[in-house]
Amino acid sequence: MSTQETTQQSAGETYVVGVDYGTLSGRAVVVRVSDGAELGSGVLEYPHAVLEEALPDGTRLRPDWALQVPADYVQVLKEAVPAALRESGVDPSRVVGIATDFTACTVLPTLADGTPLCELPELAGRPHAYVKLWKHHAAQGQADRINALAHERREPWIARYGGKLSSEWELAKGLQLLEEDPELYARTERWVEAADWIIWQLSGTYVRNVCTAGYKAVLQDGAYPSKDFLEALHPEFGGFFSGKVEQELAPLGARAGSLTAEAAAWTGLPEGIAVAVGNVDAHVTAPAAKAVQPGQMLAVMGTSTCHVMNSDQLGEVPGMCGVVRDGITPGLWGYEAGQSGVGDIFAWFVRSSVPPAYVEAAESRGVSVHEHLTDLAARQAVGEHGLVALDWHSGNRSVLVDHELSGVIAGLTLGTKPEEVYRALLESTAFGTRRIIEAFEESGVPVQELVVAGGLLKNAFLMQVYADVTRRPLSLLASAQGPALGSAIHAAVAAGAYPDVYAASEAMGRKEEAAFVPDEERAAAYDLLYAEYRRLHDALGPDDGPLGGLLHRLRAIRRDAHGKGAGA
Amino acid sequence: MSTQETTQQSAGETYVVGVDYGTLSGRAVVVRVSDGAELGSGVLEYPHAVLEEALPDGTRLRPDWALQVPADYVQVLKEAVPAALRESGVDPSRVVGIATDFTACTVLPTLADGTPLCELPELAGRPHAYVKLWKHHAAQGQADRINALAHERREPWIARYGGKLSSEWELAKGLQLLEEDPELYARTERWVEAADWIIWQLSGTYVRNVCTAGYKAVLQDGAYPSKDFLEALHPEFGGFFSGKVEQELAPLGARAGSLTAEAAAWTGLPEGIAVAVGNVDAHVTAPAAKAVQPGQMLAVMGTSTCHVMNSDQLGEVPGMCGVVRDGITPGLWGYEAGQSGVGDIFAWFVRSSVPPAYVEAAESRGVSVHEHLTDLAARQAVGEHGLVALDWHSGNRSVLVDHELSGVIAGLTLGTKPEEVYRALLESTAFGTRRIIEAFEESGVPVQELVVAGGLLKNAFLMQVYADVTRRPLSLLASAQGPALGSAIHAAVAAGAYPDVYAASEAMGRKEEAAFVPDEERAAAYDLLYAEYRRLHDALGPDDGPLGGLLHRLRAIRRDAHGKGAGA
Repeated sequence: MSTQETTQQSAGETYVVGVDYGTLSGRAVVVRVSDGAELGSGVLEYPHAVLEEALPDGTRLRPDWALQVPADYVQVLKEAVPAALRESGVDPSRVVGIATDFTACTVLPTLADGTPLCELPELAGRPHAYVKLWKHHAAQGQADRINALAHERREPWIARYGGKLSSEWELAKGLQLLEEDPELYARTERWVEAADWIIWQLSGTYVRNVCTAGYKAVLQDGAYPSKDFLEALHPEFGGFFSGKVEQELAPLGARAGSLTAEAAAWTGLPEGIAVAVGNVDAHVTAPAAKAVQPGQMLAVMGTSTCHVMNSDQLGEVPGMCGVVRDGITPGLWGYEAGQSGVGDIFAWFVRSSVPPAYVEAAESRGVSVHEHLTDLAARQAVGEHGLVALDWHSGNRSVLVDHELSGVIAGLTLGTKPEEVYRALLESTAFGTRRIIEAFEESGVPVQELVVAGGLLKNAFLMQVYADVTRRPLSLLASAQGPALGSAIHAAVAAGAYPDVYAASEAMGRKEEAAFVPDEERAAAYDLLYAEYRRLHDALGPDDGPLGGLLHRLRAIRRDAHGKGAGA
Repeated sequence: MSTQETTQQSAGETYVVGVDYGTLSGRAVVVRVSDGAELGSGVLEYPHAVLEEALPDGTRLRPDWALQVPADYVQVLKEAVPAALRESGVDPSRVVGIATDFTACTVLPTLADGTPLCELPELAGRPHAYVKLWKHHAAQGQADRINALAHERREPWIARYGGKLSSEWELAKGLQLLEEDPELYARTERWVEAADWIIWQLSGTYVRNVCTAGYKAVLQDGAYPSKDFLEALHPEFGGFFSGKVEQELAPLGARAGSLTAEAAAWTGLPEGIAVAVGNVDAHVTAPAAKAVQPGQMLAVMGTSTCHVMNSDQLGEVPGMCGVVRDGITPGLWGYEAGQSGVGDIFAWFVRSSVPPAYVEAAESRGVSVHEHLTDLAARQAVGEHGLVALDWHSGNRSVLVDHELSGVIAGLTLGTKPEEVYRALLESTAFGTRRIIEAFEESGVPVQELVVAGGLLKNAFLMQVYADVTRRPLSLLASAQGPALGSAIHAAVAAGAYPDVYAASEAMGRKEEAAFVPDEERAAAYDLLYAEYRRLHDALGPDDGPLGGLLHRLRAIRRDAHGKGAGA
């Protein structure tokens, strides 16, 4: 944030605050309404981060669980927003609106007034009382049954989700709650997306945004899945949508309500300013990156990658996460696809698989281990490592929609070096993106442009790999705070500063065009590796592949063995 | 070596020296003839170790090459033998014989007098002038053509090698020499197993041992492959056996000659004592472990594993390395099978894939990283890691006989820990051994007992895994110097101290019976993991498997890319 920008506040300027709730932290940015200039930011790491092994009281969690503590989200409002205001130098009285975006599907059980069940003292030791983070993958059994039943009954909505609902979404997670802790299910009065819950805290108003209602709660053509369908899953599940999920809907960019006195005190913002309806981190980034026209695919690359793209046509793409009317911006069909592990995989490798000499070399060079490995990897020709990996360490969202899959690496030799495995992992995620683009194009939904946002765009080597592997020029979101900027754009629309999100995006969004272009020779070499990726993918991914079910069985063996105690 | 033992030399005792030439060092042991007591040892790490990236003059090597320098072997005689004598306290005049064992197929081109070509100054920069170590894997193309032609011509000897000759053996390495450096091939007057070359240096006599002649040079029923066959491979190759390989043969345990004055000066041993014919490290260990009766399978587990077993019947086991009359001990059919990477794989993992916190924890516990990882891995139940690996990092010797394969690991998640991958690698090698035992038994060659020798037997957890995975009690060679003891046993026979190897083995060998027994519950759990290992094995291993050729193509991509220089 330059001091120059902050001192250039002219008398007529107004400002908005965007807050981005990520997997590990919340980040607030103060943005100028007229041109999108980012004037100050503040960040808070969630005090409880992600609960994967135990609850705060020590209660153990089983594998594949991932929970969060909702009070951490409120803490972001209390710390990150004031910090951003301070850094910006902006007079808080000139802030006209606030908006947020969230990971999704991140969902929690509450009382009718929005109180999270985990905040009731008698329920603090119950895992199901907490927020289930997007990457909670313990409801796969439920998702499998939901999908089988949907196909058996030929439910029309299933094709809108590429043929499969994810175990990450509201329905599977809700059914898991009912089946594993029925008493707590009964006490759940509202089953709330965190994206909407935080707006409820800010505005005192509970409205559901159409984005998560569509993508995560299966709202299509104005209706949720039927009571019949729910009861066929479980006799006690019939009232799930009508009793716990249904809520007044609002389009993206609309005003949910006004900032309450309590929330004004938390944030230091004026009471009564516009609070926009909730939104999702990837979707809100599209306007920040000026990627809201039909055929502009935005890839938000961080711990995971989310692909969002508007289209003026309704198509059915196998393995996409969903297509939702008005799901990204009003008036178009919004497509979503995703890769459930990307930066997470690179981080896992750096954490668990890099020997001391490399860590020391990175330190002595004054660079991160990621940068050191990237620099070494970049010295090799395409394919020199002889490796191909499947990027399924956190499952596969698109196109297989299967979180019980797991990562694979093939081609290891006694000469294989850490930077080679690292490069193979980088490449595997590019292959995953190529597979998704191909699925869209094979289904008649053209992908005209690829725009990258998210933390990984700062790795120039990785971006070049993506350009080469996908044979597409890559444009970049030219802001380090993409989702928060996108939220700020929505805040500006909610506050009435622009007529719609398209106009606000044009004025406030930031994109660097064709920052990386593919090299034909490397692209041809990657084609050979991608062919092997596809063979492994198609053998191990689908149940009816030649090795179909192998990774599922390994997962089942792992689950059965877990907690059996030491064996020799 | 206890002082007590050395001071108990009685007037009538005689002694022998066994020298074991391993992959990285040579080890000499002084042994008492009457009971096999090991009285002193000496070791020398080869000064040039293994040349895998460059020759001593800096000439670069391509991937898959592995060379050695023959002068290093002589240096072992000059340093390790005197050191062993000193430590033993034995009067050198009471040493009656010396014998050696070697890695195989480790082979070198020499002049007619045994001078290695690499010792001619004008050839010191030519890779093909050096010793090709057993794990030189750059002759796979030649091996493929040899095998295809042998099947096409229905050569009767091919079934004696499980249907495939290895790229590691004399024929493929010799053809590679001819095709890649024909001038040097022409100057090669003898193509000598290192096992025989070192005996030549000791005794001044070049005799071929029947063991490597059979297993590595395809001598069956008294004949090498025909000139016709060789000429069909390459018009200039017809004289390979007759001109460069054929040599007087001698059985194992026979006397090759007498120690020359020069070798006596190197070693400090008496001139004229018995020098036994050359032998191979695994084969020579069988009598040391008292594993020379039909159906006793010895697994020598070190960087790689070699399985040797005598039988009174001739059978054809798919993928075995070979069956050779008198190949282990005179009078029986000797079977050999192998795993080309075992301890090497564990060492690669520790070298390349273990993060600093683990290395520091091992240091602070005062244990090796191997021990630390083993201790952590041992705390888990079977299958708790959810992983299965293919142990092909150095190719697969049995049952696939394919050194172009490579390692695979499946089941990786963001929670996978180093000790879990380490355990999966340990297990994968046990699965590899199980596959070999099953191949023997499916071919009607029963395996009655499993005896383990080699450096890895000191890992009790690993031994237990092998017992559980193979569902067999494991006996152990009760000597840390197994091959050297085995050589000493042959020296004693060559010196006339025992009538044959069987009698010498009974008197001098050492075995701990059933040191590990399988646990039924763990064995049942391993059956599930082994089933997945077999599915991956059968999909990726054979060319006609569902993923057959994938690992070959990765290897080809790697080879083609190598040296192309940096790509983005």
